Amino acid sequence: MAHDTIRDRLAALARRTNDLANRDALLTWKMSDDALAVVLQAADLLREFVRTGLSPRVFDGGLGMAIFRDKSTRTRYAFKSACNLLGLATEELEESTSQIAHGETVRETANMISFLTEVIGIRDDMFIHEGHRYMTEVGASVEEGFRAGVLPQRPAVVNLQCDLDHPTQALADLAHLATTFGGLDALKGKRLAMTWAYSPSYGKPLSVPQGVVALMARFGMQVVLAHPPGYELLPEPLDAARRFAAASGGSFTVTGSMAEAFAGADVVYPKSWAPFRVMEERTRILRAGERARLADLEKEALANNARFTDWECTEERMRGTRGGKALYMHCLPADVTGVSCKAGEVAQSVFERYRLDTYREAGYKPYVIAALILATRFADPAAALGRALEAGVPRRRG
Amino acid sequence: MAHDTIRDRLAALARRTNDLANRDALLTWKMSDDALAVVLQAADLLREFVRTGLSPRVFDGGLGMAIFRDKSTRTRYAFKSACNLLGLATEELEESTSQIAHGETVRETANMISFLTEVIGIRDDMFIHEGHRYMTEVGASVEEGFRAGVLPQRPAVVNLQCDLDHPTQALADLAHLATTFGGLDALKGKRLAMTWAYSPSYGKPLSVPQGVVALMARFGMQVVLAHPPGYELLPEPLDAARRFAAASGGSFTVTGSMAEAFAGADVVYPKSWAPFRVMEERTRILRAGERARLADLEKEALANNARFTDWECTEERMRGTRGGKALYMHCLPADVTGVSCKAGEVAQSVFERYRLDTYREAGYKPYVIAALILATRFADPAAALGRALEAGVPRRRG
Amino acid sequence: MAHDTIRDRLAALARRTNDLANRDALLTWKMSDDALAVVLQAADLLREFVRTGLSPRVFDGGLGMAIFRDKSTRTRYAFKSACNLLGLATEELEESTSQIAHGETVRETANMISFLTEVIGIRDDMFIHEGHRYMTEVGASVEEGFRAGVLPQRPAVVNLQCDLDHPTQALADLAHLATTFGGLDALKGKRLAMTWAYSPSYGKPLSVPQGVVALMARFGMQVVLAHPPGYELLPEPLDAARRFAAASGGSFTVTGSMAEAFAGADVVYPKSWAPFRVMEERTRILRAGERARLADLEKEALANNARFTDWECTEERMRGTRGGKALYMHCLPADVTGVSCKAGEVAQSVFERYRLDTYREAGYKPYVIAALILATRFADPAAALGRALEAGVPRRRG
Repeated sequence: MAHDTIRDRLAALARRTNDLANRDALLTWKMSDDALAVVLQAADLLREFVRTGLSPRVFDGGLGMAIFRDKSTRTRYAFKSACNLLGLATEELEESTSQIAHGETVRETANMISFLTEVIGIRDDMFIHEGHRYMTEVGASVEEGFRAGVLPQRPAVVNLQCDLDHPTQALADLAHLATTFGGLDALKGKRLAMTWAYSPSYGKPLSVPQGVVALMARFGMQVVLAHPPGYELLPEPLDAARRFAAASGGSFTVTGSMAEAFAGADVVYPKSWAPFRVMEERTRILRAGERARLADLEKEALANNARFTDWECTEERMRGTRGGKALYMHCLPADVTGVSCKAGEVAQSVFERYRLDTYREAGYKPYVIAALILATRFADPAAALGRALEAGVPRRRG
Repeated sequence: MAHDTIRDRLAALARRTNDLANRDALLTWKMSDDALAVVLQAADLLREFVRTGLSPRVFDGGLGMAIFRDKSTRTRYAFKSACNLLGLATEELEESTSQIAHGETVRETANMISFLTEVIGIRDDMFIHEGHRYMTEVGASVEEGFRAGVLPQRPAVVNLQCDLDHPTQALADLAHLATTFGGLDALKGKRLAMTWAYSPSYGKPLSVPQGVVALMARFGMQVVLAHPPGYELLPEPLDAARRFAAASGGSFTVTGSMAEAFAGADVVYPKSWAPFRVMEERTRILRAGERARLADLEKEALANNARFTDWECTEERMRGTRGGKALYMHCLPADVTGVSCKAGEVAQSVFERYRLDTYREAGYKPYVIAALILATRFADPAAALGRALEAGVPRRRG
Repeated sequence: MAHDTIRDRLAALARRTNDLANRDALLTWKMSDDALAVVLQAADLLREFVRTGLSPRVFDGGLGMAIFRDKSTRTRYAFKSACNLLGLATEELEESTSQIAHGETVRETANMISFLTEVIGIRDDMFIHEGHRYMTEVGASVEEGFRAGVLPQRPAVVNLQCDLDHPTQALADLAHLATTFGGLDALKGKRLAMTWAYSPSYGKPLSVPQGVVALMARFGMQVVLAHPPGYELLPEPLDAARRFAAASGGSFTVTGSMAEAFAGADVVYPKSWAPFRVMEERTRILRAGERARLADLEKEALANNARFTDWECTEERMRGTRGGKALYMHCLPADVTGVSCKAGEVAQSVFERYRLDTYREAGYKPYVIAALILATRFADPAAALGRALEAGVPRRRG
């Protein structure tokens, strides 16, 4: 029976220590193993509630605030769905996307939007060295407000993508991998190729590859990162990947060849990102408001990209993976050759074969975000969900 | 007693076959007679719930997504009210209104916004031959996602106005007519003049007159469509009107004279719309991005409109209707002569006399939309509302 | 016990006559003493519900509509939080901020957005002699619609800032003062300096100082209004302040010296506002669409402001207050010298000392707005909250 399955999983969740309570969820590599387990198990339970038609609503009122400093469809929708699933209404703080506000303004605004707020979801991935700093500042501001009695509760800051990590994406990717391969334990020893791929655009954030390598190395995978010269990632997540790989019995290597990364891979994740140096320069330019310089930078960056159009996930490359059948992953939207662009990250036939898989991959995100809210806002998420189970309210009457 | 009235109506609703379940609600002329009856009866019941102060909330969580590819105040509000009435939170997908996206993008986006979505309300009426096609594509995309296990439920697409039909408006109009004349049966033989009227604007959609003639002819009305040369409507709804008129014992005729249409009419619906040819050309221009050409087209269209300023619903014209007392209808906002423009669709004194009636007409829309959601998302809408009745939750405590 | 505290306060609230029911909340000086008591006590109770973790949700569905004709972060958030606290979903009516729509359009739109709406929150403070008029018109429009059976309920219009008053700010300020000094009675005889202060911006609304002097004089405070020549306020609230001061045993005086106002003050509220004449001229210019003239006006206004840069709340000025320890108040955001501008309304060290106090001050706003909704939408707010108390639903399960 579905309810029994839920009960068993709740019992397993209850055995975990939840050290995320009353904290922020910013970087997976700063979270404990237990915290990750809590999030993954809670996400799984929430999905089970929905599949069973049971409402996991644990809030009766309260707000989820979204701050998007970059365009977003999927993550915005996933955040709003996650809030709704738990019973929170959502609001969005409108800011100029070009403004990098710090100091007084952040402290004040963070409190002004938090009087009845349970979670603040932030996307700030356009400015290298900025996004994570901004989220930390918002977290410290509401912490101050809560301790001073300004706020009746301490809203959690949930990272919806910063310059360092994209934890809700990486955790959704992990859940997808676990489902595909039959559990987290089955990931040990599996080879994952996180590789750069050509795209006729520039300025894509670095946080997805960074988040993926740091998280997957932790679960014993053999993670290979591949990119052309100049497309290096930030040191912090790479250090984390190395550390975790050593501890988990996995590995983390970097190569300059896409073919090498694909060789024998169980999973491939070919995706474009901007050169670190370009992103830094872009941040400097945007701060200085040098519009003309921005156009030049874009031209240079695209010209540089164009030197690597052969970094494409083709059928031929796929044949080099384990049995020619590696799982293809993408955070979407992908630049599909012949579909969304003339030449892109992936061949049409490869993408089409895995298209529904990438949709399923994305489908974990609302649950992962909801699980992060549960874990940060409830000392005992299992107890909260247990009460929702007892209440037995269907998501749809009839 | 109010609850007994509701119970009787629920029993009547339960006797109808609901073939809209797990489908989309796009064109009234593709819906069965039973489907229309289910929608009209459910709308009536929902209004009764509200009048009685009872909450008809049937969802505990879940999203209604709105996609507006044209400006909208009334329909947007009506959609959001309808979702709220049933317990759904609403989100809006922001798109550039000029972009006509198809293919890969639609398939993917439709799934990305649907993981926890029950209904997708779409307005796409700016581009002839496009709106309905887009909605069909969204429907097929979520159907694929649902069948492939990507989506835990199959969201319904509800047409909030396309190039062919404006079903929520036409059904609200029908509910208003039924209330005014004493039931649907009382509409048989009544004469309705759907006529073009002058407006100092151009590019108004064709879907209202198309939706109205197709739907009202089905209920035995004598429908007369009147417009100047060049303001023809699309063939599909006109064919439907002819077919339905023949089957229902009503009639459907087209004339080039507003006076002729008004003669002996029980109902008049004078409203501006764009020439079909202009809308086609406009679609072509917008696709091609020819901004200068657009201004020319607008000038030509307005000059052509100006030849027909005598197509106004004046007091004199009203005197030609049955007993001089035909019901005036409008989907709002109307171009009222001397109020919102120098010369428009309707004389101020006529409009003022029926102003509150047009508000009442609009007032059916939230209930019609909610009824479409109920019918598409519940196999047995009567059972769902029956459970809400049993629960007996007041909409306002106190 | 917390529940007992709530019960006692509910009993006290129940003894008040609520004459706001089914009316609008536009100007505090038009509200009865009992009405103000109901609002303040209800706000206090709602805060207590939240502190205790109890949900004060009294609506099961229904909308709160926001109409913001000026930019807003805090008030928008406060309105949306207030609606959410009571169980209403919120929607926003998007308008061009430059459009001053009246007559037909207002009547119609007001009804079109009200079919299932309980409250319409409006901010319209940019145009002198306009904001209050617009709100009155919206109120009259929904009143007409309700009486004519167009609307099943009569939504309340709540003033979120107009040209005359900012009642939700002034009431939040009053609640903050009551908490700080130990109750409303303790405010009698306390000296409050509402003074103009320099800011390197122009065009700030007059409604905060107007609302504050009118409301605080009513509670027996010795209110001193100070501003440079040319920065006069509108007569209506000043007349109210004089009348209330006479009745309450307080006082209301106007001075041209900031130092004089600060002398012996228990509370200081230094804040920039635009000269009345400039706001009138600005309204005329915006109506006429004279963009070039607007830039000139801004230049003149800023030059005039610059003559009064010494109107700053410095440490030295603070030393002139009672014991050098007056409570500093601000509606936020403040122009803090050396932080948000080179020279502004308040010295950094003064602001920092009272920063968390100003956050607390702002923290009353969601509760005040929710209390206004309760008072306008429920004949007996105590009964409504009493039922929420009996229901005993926690705001967070777990």
